Amino acid sequence: MSTQKNFTLAVVGGDGIGPEVTAEALKVLDAVSAVHGVTFERTEYDLGAKRWHETGETLPDAELAEIRKHDAILLGAVGDPTVPSGVLERGLLLKLRFALDHYVNLRPSKIYPSVGSPLASPGEVDFVVVREGTEGPYVGNGGALRVGTPAEIATEVSVNTAYGVERVVRDAFARAQARPRKKLTLVHKNNVLVHAGHLWKRTVDAVATEFPDIAVDYLHVDAATIFLVTDPARFDVIVTDNLFGDILTDLAAAISGGIGLAASGNINPDRTAPSMFEPVHGSAPDIAGQQKADPTAAILSAALLCDHLGLTEAAAAIEAAVTADIEERTAGGTRTTSEIGDAIAKRAAG
Amino acid sequence: MSTQKNFTLAVVGGDGIGPEVTAEALKVLDAVSAVHGVTFERTEYDLGAKRWHETGETLPDAELAEIRKHDAILLGAVGDPTVPSGVLERGLLLKLRFALDHYVNLRPSKIYPSVGSPLASPGEVDFVVVREGTEGPYVGNGGALRVGTPAEIATEVSVNTAYGVERVVRDAFARAQARPRKKLTLVHKNNVLVHAGHLWKRTVDAVATEFPDIAVDYLHVDAATIFLVTDPARFDVIVTDNLFGDILTDLAAAISGGIGLAASGNINPDRTAPSMFEPVHGSAPDIAGQQKADPTAAILSAALLCDHLGLTEAAAAIEAAVTADIEERTAGGTRTTSEIGDAIAKRAAG
Ligand SMILES: CC(C)[C@H](C(=O)O)[C@@H](O)C(=O)O
Ligand SMILES: CC(C)[C@H](C(=O)O)[C@@H](O)C(=O)O
Repeated sequence: MSTQKNFTLAVVGGDGIGPEVTAEALKVLDAVSAVHGVTFERTEYDLGAKRWHETGETLPDAELAEIRKHDAILLGAVGDPTVPSGVLERGLLLKLRFALDHYVNLRPSKIYPSVGSPLASPGEVDFVVVREGTEGPYVGNGGALRVGTPAEIATEVSVNTAYGVERVVRDAFARAQARPRKKLTLVHKNNVLVHAGHLWKRTVDAVATEFPDIAVDYLHVDAATIFLVTDPARFDVIVTDNLFGDILTDLAAAISGGIGLAASGNINPDRTAPSMFEPVHGSAPDIAGQQKADPTAAILSAALLCDHLGLTEAAAAIEAAVTADIEERTAGGTRTTSEIGDAIAKRAAG
Repeated sequence: MSTQKNFTLAVVGGDGIGPEVTAEALKVLDAVSAVHGVTFERTEYDLGAKRWHETGETLPDAELAEIRKHDAILLGAVGDPTVPSGVLERGLLLKLRFALDHYVNLRPSKIYPSVGSPLASPGEVDFVVVREGTEGPYVGNGGALRVGTPAEIATEVSVNTAYGVERVVRDAFARAQARPRKKLTLVHKNNVLVHAGHLWKRTVDAVATEFPDIAVDYLHVDAATIFLVTDPARFDVIVTDNLFGDILTDLAAAISGGIGLAASGNINPDRTAPSMFEPVHGSAPDIAGQQKADPTAAILSAALLCDHLGLTEAAAAIEAAVTADIEERTAGGTRTTSEIGDAIAKRAAG
């Protein structure tokens, strides 16, 4: 249990459905904070497409410095069709992840029996992807020459360091150690991306010697997608690079009840900067502002936030409230974004 | 129809189950060639793990020059746990694809009602992935420094050129034009890999103006994995980069009856070198030599080979034989690799 009682939160609702689902996550945080005797003092940051259109800014350094002073960050979604693809993603979302050294991008997947899965017989699914968050092809070390001409060449560089790989691999092993099944699967593509892939493989093999209880295996990323649809129950902890993690966690969300339920934490385990919690889903501009979005992923991200801050009971209360709410879903009826938030907040407080 | 009657085939059985499944594909080619009045003169190349262990060679230039003289190549599978990961993949398989300029890696996916799918309600699935085969992160332009030390850094460079992207995009549009649904989906990750992604996107947008009949859309690779499990029927032609294509085609195979049925062609559309046909599956060393492998993917790859050589009727005969064989599968019974090959060969000839 944390002894700290009063926390500061930086809130970035962002684009599309981001602000709507974030509002519900805050509602649920309020409900549990009252019960658990803590407070979350919020500062909202107006960042995203609107801000960019008005000022040309994505995330000014002064604002980043402000955000950095908080205990945690709650983020909705980033990305809008009226902004060139990549501007907000790189200039805001990835800037936060990289600047705040969120090297563990944590993405749990679980199939709730009442929600079901597009898979005919998924089995019992309960795994977590530990996606590296500060290296790989996401580093932005690419470039282009002679753009727009027939002689154009565009490159993207994946950067992987022993420093960066080892720290996330250690984190993944520690998580596997804390889970009942004690299994870790490295996913990469070391038969093609031999330099990066062998660094990952050697690192996992080396750290594995310190965790003799953990069963370790390796899958190429292409084969991993097969197992995610034919036998997802085989997975416990998956550790993988930034891009493979991006791909696998959307697939994982899809097989386990949909992207409406997938939460994530961008974690700085060394606590040198605040961690950031956000749903895996995007900004879904087509349904924005219509109260159609499912806020459950944002609410579960708030549970991860509580957990990270040491508020284990509050986290458990939110998770239990979500589980109970999800179990009722088969009863049918379409609820608005805030109706779902209300229902979960009520349960979480009760 | 082709006027050529006598064809030369380079055969690379390779590793694991590769030789077994290739033998069945050749059996079926023999069956149809008799009926359609053509011949396939075969030369087998002893390449793969065994050869590497004995000689240290993966694909000597002299042998590559020999292989290049053939009309087409039939390949089984490459890769073995006794060889360091990447040695055979890069030194043999990718060397062939790159040296012979196989810039279209063609991978059709189809759900056969009798085989079914791990998806509860997949719908009617019939799409083809046009995977770029000579660029992207597969180029081998990576490297590593201070290997094995805490200061190690490993990079992988994705190289994309207007030349390379445009030719594969044109090929994909032409294929979409020839299909009834006339739809093309570009898959990339242009919100993060902005240089490569924007080159791909601009190229598709430019070529699209020449194909006004084709409906074009774009998906990020992570979102594409979601649709492949929630609504695979939405896809017709997918065009994508080398690595994304690798990942998506294993997933596509998984949702459509398994990797035992997934065929592929590594195609040089300009015919400056022979094209190469191979099952999407790997060498599966755990079941090698036991007559347990399903040769259907290799046999369907032989159908793609016939098609490429202009032997449309022979290709159709093989495909019909496979469909009939697959439809009987629900009848049950486990057949050996060669029993499946015999059954399909008999039908294809009949
Ligand atoms: C929006 C995008 C930059 C982001 C990513 O690729 O990481 C998203 O897909 C995610 O998974 O959080
Ligand atoms: C064996 C490997 C190099 C190959 C690839 O990555 O292309 C395989 O996975 C494939 O899809 O043909």
